[in-house]
Amino acid sequence: MLDKIRIVLLNTSHPGNIGAAARAMKTMGLTALSLVKPTVFPHAKANEMASGALDILANAKVVATLDEAIADCALVVGTSARSRTLPWPMLTPRAFAEKVSSSAKTTAILFGRENSGLTNEELQRCHWHIQIPANPEYSSLNIAAAVQVIAYELRVLCQQESLPVSLEEYATDEDLQGYYTHLERVLIALDFLNPKAPRQLLPRLRRLFNRAELDRVEVNILRGILTAVEKSIK
Amino acid sequence: MLDKIRIVLLNTSHPGNIGAAARAMKTMGLTALSLVKPTVFPHAKANEMASGALDILANAKVVATLDEAIADCALVVGTSARSRTLPWPMLTPRAFAEKVSSSAKTTAILFGRENSGLTNEELQRCHWHIQIPANPEYSSLNIAAAVQVIAYELRVLCQQESLPVSLEEYATDEDLQGYYTHLERVLIALDFLNPKAPRQLLPRLRRLFNRAELDRVEVNILRGILTAVEKSIK
Repeated sequence: MLDKIRIVLLNTSHPGNIGAAARAMKTMGLTALSLVKPTVFPHAKANEMASGALDILANAKVVATLDEAIADCALVVGTSARSRTLPWPMLTPRAFAEKVSSSAKTTAILFGRENSGLTNEELQRCHWHIQIPANPEYSSLNIAAAVQVIAYELRVLCQQESLPVSLEEYATDEDLQGYYTHLERVLIALDFLNPKAPRQLLPRLRRLFNRAELDRVEVNILRGILTAVEKSIK
Repeated sequence: MLDKIRIVLLNTSHPGNIGAAARAMKTMGLTALSLVKPTVFPHAKANEMASGALDILANAKVVATLDEAIADCALVVGTSARSRTLPWPMLTPRAFAEKVSSSAKTTAILFGRENSGLTNEELQRCHWHIQIPANPEYSSLNIAAAVQVIAYELRVLCQQESLPVSLEEYATDEDLQGYYTHLERVLIALDFLNPKAPRQLLPRLRRLFNRAELDRVEVNILRGILTAVEKSIK
């Protein structure tokens, strides 16, 4: 179970946090780390904070975009302390661990910037948001601390553990983004979506379909319908 | 429950770890910190790592001996990654949280030195040892990370109730059947569904949307799209 989980850190400013996150991962048995445009990496401070987890840093993938980091992932979750304008399905770290343990999906867990977290756009790429229970008056966990808590819940669960049941072929993030792009194009052609005043239409539809955790056959059906609509418009 | 728990750090070498531990505590609602002979404290690095938890550092008690730190505590537990020559009653962080929540005892949780942990003598002062589940090949959590995990379990227990999913009002069966009928009509008009050879198309779509547990706003959006498609066909 732990080998299909990828930790994705976005635009991390402090290399020490990357190292500390790597240590947190390794203590819990996670190995796959992707860094989306870190401010400075590699760096001596990252190595220092990684302590015995230098192998995690050495194998970390540095990529330019979130797309690259998660293209092959069938489940994408984001960590968020804040409640957003458009509420998203939320999981506790424990409920998330249970969800992951009962699936066979390649999973990415996104951690945002030190000061500003994940953007709305990034949060809307997620199937679920994970909220770590925290002091309402001060809920700002350090990134490595947040990695530690979530990795800990995964570890606890996989020490108890059971094998995943599902063998369905899930849609990957790339499949989903292809569908959403297609959907947007058709909604504009239908004059249902005004690109100049999009409001919350697309995020709402993303939230809906992300929640359903589509398989590939379903994505193909939905895109087939969109193609039929396009033909009928012409 | 959280206000009777004291975090005790023994001979911590790096002031940054003291600050990070303070931050970990505050995010989970713990406030009482005792420092037994820290190598350097106070220190700018401690403040930097504490981030918004400077109040925890300002109120920390610096003492010369473990005795002073725990004299008034009715329950003392020590964190240990290693199994010792003399086995001690062990608790997982979760079992510890349950134990604490059902008692009214003033409780101290001891965290040892960065390199060598707690001494045998210190461990034998404890009623229980807490072992954080970890990778057997690398179980060395940073001190602040260990504080985070244990404080997190305490917080979860004292919060207990789950997070609200905060979606809109759920769609009723009537809403859903109205949507499915509308969808079928449009798919036939698009020549995407052949009523004489429907195969599994509608059941698949039903299964997909049922799984998503649609709310009313979403049903309205989906039917709005269907209506826009109908207009474009005519």
